[in-house]
Amino acid sequence: MQSSFLINNRITQLFKIEYPIIQAGMVWASGWRLASAVSNAGGLGILGAGSMYPEVLKEHIQKTKAATSKPFAVNLPLLYPNIKELIEIIITEKVPIVFTSAGNPKAYTSILKEAGIIFVHVVSSSFFAQKAEAAGCDAVVAEGFEAGGHNGREETTTMVLIPAVKASIKIPLIAAGGIATGRQMFAAMILGAEAVQIGTRFVCSEEASSHFSFKEAIIQSKEGDTQLGLKQLVPVRLLKNPFSLAILEAEKNGVSIETLQTMLGKARAKKGMFEGDMVEGELEIGQVSSLIKDIKPAAEIVHEIWNDFTAAVSNPF
Amino acid sequence: MQSSFLINNRITQLFKIEYPIIQAGMVWASGWRLASAVSNAGGLGILGAGSMYPEVLKEHIQKTKAATSKPFAVNLPLLYPNIKELIEIIITEKVPIVFTSAGNPKAYTSILKEAGIIFVHVVSSSFFAQKAEAAGCDAVVAEGFEAGGHNGREETTTMVLIPAVKASIKIPLIAAGGIATGRQMFAAMILGAEAVQIGTRFVCSEEASSHFSFKEAIIQSKEGDTQLGLKQLVPVRLLKNPFSLAILEAEKNGVSIETLQTMLGKARAKKGMFEGDMVEGELEIGQVSSLIKDIKPAAEIVHEIWNDFTAAVSNPF
Repeated sequence: MQSSFLINNRITQLFKIEYPIIQAGMVWASGWRLASAVSNAGGLGILGAGSMYPEVLKEHIQKTKAATSKPFAVNLPLLYPNIKELIEIIITEKVPIVFTSAGNPKAYTSILKEAGIIFVHVVSSSFFAQKAEAAGCDAVVAEGFEAGGHNGREETTTMVLIPAVKASIKIPLIAAGGIATGRQMFAAMILGAEAVQIGTRFVCSEEASSHFSFKEAIIQSKEGDTQLGLKQLVPVRLLKNPFSLAILEAEKNGVSIETLQTMLGKARAKKGMFEGDMVEGELEIGQVSSLIKDIKPAAEIVHEIWNDFTAAVSNPF
Repeated sequence: MQSSFLINNRITQLFKIEYPIIQAGMVWASGWRLASAVSNAGGLGILGAGSMYPEVLKEHIQKTKAATSKPFAVNLPLLYPNIKELIEIIITEKVPIVFTSAGNPKAYTSILKEAGIIFVHVVSSSFFAQKAEAAGCDAVVAEGFEAGGHNGREETTTMVLIPAVKASIKIPLIAAGGIATGRQMFAAMILGAEAVQIGTRFVCSEEASSHFSFKEAIIQSKEGDTQLGLKQLVPVRLLKNPFSLAILEAEKNGVSIETLQTMLGKARAKKGMFEGDMVEGELEIGQVSSLIKDIKPAAEIVHEIWNDFTAAVSNPF
């Protein structure tokens, strides 16, 4: 890779990374293979702890450390039942960076800070960004409506959310939602982000543990093939399939929360994204899936986004 | 205004305008005062014919021509009942540019083209952009989910929609949805647009015919204060108020289309946006309303966006 251009900002300095490209921690997709590949390529790889039992997370942390000497992170959904056990493992294993999501970061600030861990929280509004800043977080990820998986209730898109959050906090801001190319990365940084977090594009990497049928379905997907559902529980962006369409239809007909919970059942996400059941599984993915046309090594994805980004910076119009 | 920087591209050449800034044609907001002010300031002003009887449109066209020697346009919702009468007026009055929306542009291509009128269609997907190109349109506006008023069913956001449409057509592309500042304009152009269409920001101009109470409500609005409703009819983004919240609640409970139509009734948009009924009126506005803090002359808005844009181009990070 050749480039005369480098971004040296608060995020690259905070995480000690070469490129301000962060691979989102995603359930059933981002284990040690993906996270270490992204970190080795100069971005920040993140383990998605949301789909890991404590002992599995421990194994993935150890394998990541063996596979890269570069910084990496763990994403921790704060509603996870074994959260304290996971935090203990993260501290014991000296994970340098933690991204938290889906919950209140305040309860965990002091324990993570005391352990010298860099602490980033994922939000979907300025209100929660300010809460995260007040709680002592080192940075926030602001994630727009177009993002895959769990999503905010206010449905604010990346184009509007990033300038709004930027104006509301002093700590550095990472943009997420609708970003898979270098031009989208450049646009997000123009809006006020100092780095981007990319999920969907990395699901279609060779190292993602996502089922091949899911990766294939993303490549085949077209505009309009994802939709936000389960709004009465936690809104989540899903690839349309018989399961998600049944959910959307039920919601249109005014279904109760209890019925929705029964329809969702247990282990739908694993069934879809990990086991490859494209009919009955839950398939969390972003709108940007329609722009993705191939599966390639994660390092190539990092370099392609970076080269596209630097080319756009040199020649924006 | 001082700037050593100019955009000279297919859109500025097509419309013969100084800045690639287009003021959206909006019902009950954009009459001759707003359109002529924007055109005189170097952008493209558009009359919103959707809320005008034929004789009213004729008067606004004549007043616009008296108020500016610069190019301007008329926005024509193709589902308008008196559409043929409006087109006759547009041709007779020698309006140079027409933007169409909400319908199939194909039926009107030849008559507008024969009259030498530049013809632009508003779309919410690559599929409809390709249809517009095939129908002979000179350009398209692609409008993301965050936009105010009528909206696409696929809910694709500007961040994802612009690169997708850009890759699918050869004619020039104008971005709309979530754009009120020069940085958002720059971001949209990095994504592939050659110009931007801005609605919400111009509603809060002195020249907009929108009711003062509506302008005030926009200035007071916060993140999450707009929501897409009426999805079973035509999806439309509304400022939350007692009327829109009742619609959203009814939709959550699986209301029928007939009941929705009864709830909507007639002249809701006029009641809200023009007459200033903030309780019972329909208030069409974009997500970006939360970023708008003042009412000012339209020319100042054009210059502020342009100066912010050129500053961002010179100093992107």
